[in-house]
Amino acid sequence: MFGAVIYAPGDVRYEEREDPTILEPTDALVRTVAACVCGSDLWRYRGIAPVPEPTPIGHEFCGVVTAVGDLVKTVRPGDFVVGGFNPSDGTCPVCRKGAHANCQHGSHYDGAQAEQIRIPLADGTLVATPTMPDDDLIPSILTLSDVMCTGWHAAVSAGVGPGKSVAVVGDGAVGLCGVLAAVQLGAETVIAMSRHEARQKVARAFGATHVVAERDEAGIAAIRALTDGIGADCVLECVGTEEARLQALGCVRDGGNVGLVGVPHGDLPVNDLFWRNVGIKGGPAHCRAYLPELLDLVLARTINPGLVFDLQLPLAEVAEAYAAMDERRAIKSLLRP
Amino acid sequence: MFGAVIYAPGDVRYEEREDPTILEPTDALVRTVAACVCGSDLWRYRGIAPVPEPTPIGHEFCGVVTAVGDLVKTVRPGDFVVGGFNPSDGTCPVCRKGAHANCQHGSHYDGAQAEQIRIPLADGTLVATPTMPDDDLIPSILTLSDVMCTGWHAAVSAGVGPGKSVAVVGDGAVGLCGVLAAVQLGAETVIAMSRHEARQKVARAFGATHVVAERDEAGIAAIRALTDGIGADCVLECVGTEEARLQALGCVRDGGNVGLVGVPHGDLPVNDLFWRNVGIKGGPAHCRAYLPELLDLVLARTINPGLVFDLQLPLAEVAEAYAAMDERRAIKSLLRP
Repeated sequence: MFGAVIYAPGDVRYEEREDPTILEPTDALVRTVAACVCGSDLWRYRGIAPVPEPTPIGHEFCGVVTAVGDLVKTVRPGDFVVGGFNPSDGTCPVCRKGAHANCQHGSHYDGAQAEQIRIPLADGTLVATPTMPDDDLIPSILTLSDVMCTGWHAAVSAGVGPGKSVAVVGDGAVGLCGVLAAVQLGAETVIAMSRHEARQKVARAFGATHVVAERDEAGIAAIRALTDGIGADCVLECVGTEEARLQALGCVRDGGNVGLVGVPHGDLPVNDLFWRNVGIKGGPAHCRAYLPELLDLVLARTINPGLVFDLQLPLAEVAEAYAAMDERRAIKSLLRP
Repeated sequence: MFGAVIYAPGDVRYEEREDPTILEPTDALVRTVAACVCGSDLWRYRGIAPVPEPTPIGHEFCGVVTAVGDLVKTVRPGDFVVGGFNPSDGTCPVCRKGAHANCQHGSHYDGAQAEQIRIPLADGTLVATPTMPDDDLIPSILTLSDVMCTGWHAAVSAGVGPGKSVAVVGDGAVGLCGVLAAVQLGAETVIAMSRHEARQKVARAFGATHVVAERDEAGIAAIRALTDGIGADCVLECVGTEEARLQALGCVRDGGNVGLVGVPHGDLPVNDLFWRNVGIKGGPAHCRAYLPELLDLVLARTINPGLVFDLQLPLAEVAEAYAAMDERRAIKSLLRP
């Protein structure tokens, strides 16, 4: 089969790789129907994270099961499935608390930008659709393997609920999904912070009540002007830079909450958080905990997170999919074999 | 009138001071029925916080209103009242969100270990009891001016609710009130961490299901043994030292929450928090937000937080009240004029 392999910063190749096989009795093999490129894949592409050797890349997919190990009970060959980027067993004490991203037996896969992929812990990771989904739903289902679950996690971690005011820092695909999550969770005011027209448009389509183009102090002032002068109840930090975290802390009201899904760099000003009674929570998304509900919403056409894809390419053109995102010509690239 | 004045570390004197007067039309004057010494008062007593000049001290009280300013509407002379240590106006946008500790017009008072005290923002700070309370309820009502609200705040900030497992770091009066709060909020497992028999006894009286005497790694192991091997859903950090915060982070499960009410010293390990999906929230307690509910619980004799007082002295012996707490001969000292 063919798949993407990253060789070095800026160098992703589509090449022949060995077909995956069942290695553990809890594995499933999936024939990819769609895959995509994640903002976090760009870390290696941009040289921020190392590439010590040529490595299969990609962790977002949906597709059809082709084989399962002897212990797999909940999915079978022929099922259309989607799974989170972070495999979970679904049975350990941490998963039973709903914290699947921190599963005691959680593992890892890479190489999903390929024609086939091996998924470990299939029962605790994959969710099958009741029937083969309509083709136009594929992009939205694909978002459930990471980006929509991650935006949802930001909103859940920030305590978003009915009547809340929410500001979203970051207009990448995760931030836009955070906007959609906040709207879906009943927030009254949802402010997307974005300077890019195409992204503002998606944010509005997702239900953002306001768009703020300013940043830094001007951005904070604009958020306060929309929130009774005090800042938002909940802020979703969907970037991960220190600048973004400071923006988030400036935009949250005293007593409010910041949901973090950008991998943090830099320190937290603990004294400031304390005296302001500001809460911080977040991390890798508990995809499998959110998947059933979000899949229902997608299949019922209640939400359409697939709008984050503004570029669709054949899997063979994966190198261009990376280049377009790296150069910010695309919000997010979808790939089909 | 007479009241306590701190002159220097270890030097608290009971001496004549000027009678307080109405300074602002939103003030009330209160004749003290009971006051007490706070763990945070000990910072100055122990030389951890500076004492630049002789300063009236104390911020916990309950008593009877003797006069009110022209704009005060909700309390009147003769009312028995209790108020939080952090005055709040109750009307600003932050108070309307329930974050009274961060009131935009929040002010400060000191000198409550005295026969009389001036309370600013009386309408937004004080709560009157429907009738004169029975004398045996006075200690519990007094705790609502700080320590019980602070323990409650730790539990609320950590997301304590029905079915949760809770570990409490710190067996001072705040930690013990945190135990009581967790039980009252419906937690299933409430673990007090304490090595002191008298404090363990209060924790059990408050409903702790378990007591762990170990600290550090042994303490973490003991908490895990009681929580399916993974740590507590919620940890209340009621000390404020770096050691206590690390203890709290070791005792919380992945995906859980730490409620902080000890003033933080040292840094937060943000990367560890993120990858473990652990939330942190806390700060000064929103006393006025909690007071009505907690006062009802006290007056109905549902909770008895006054058990934290194990020493009662005449106000004139305030110096001994400090010494007993400093030397850990007392958990908390109650003073009556």
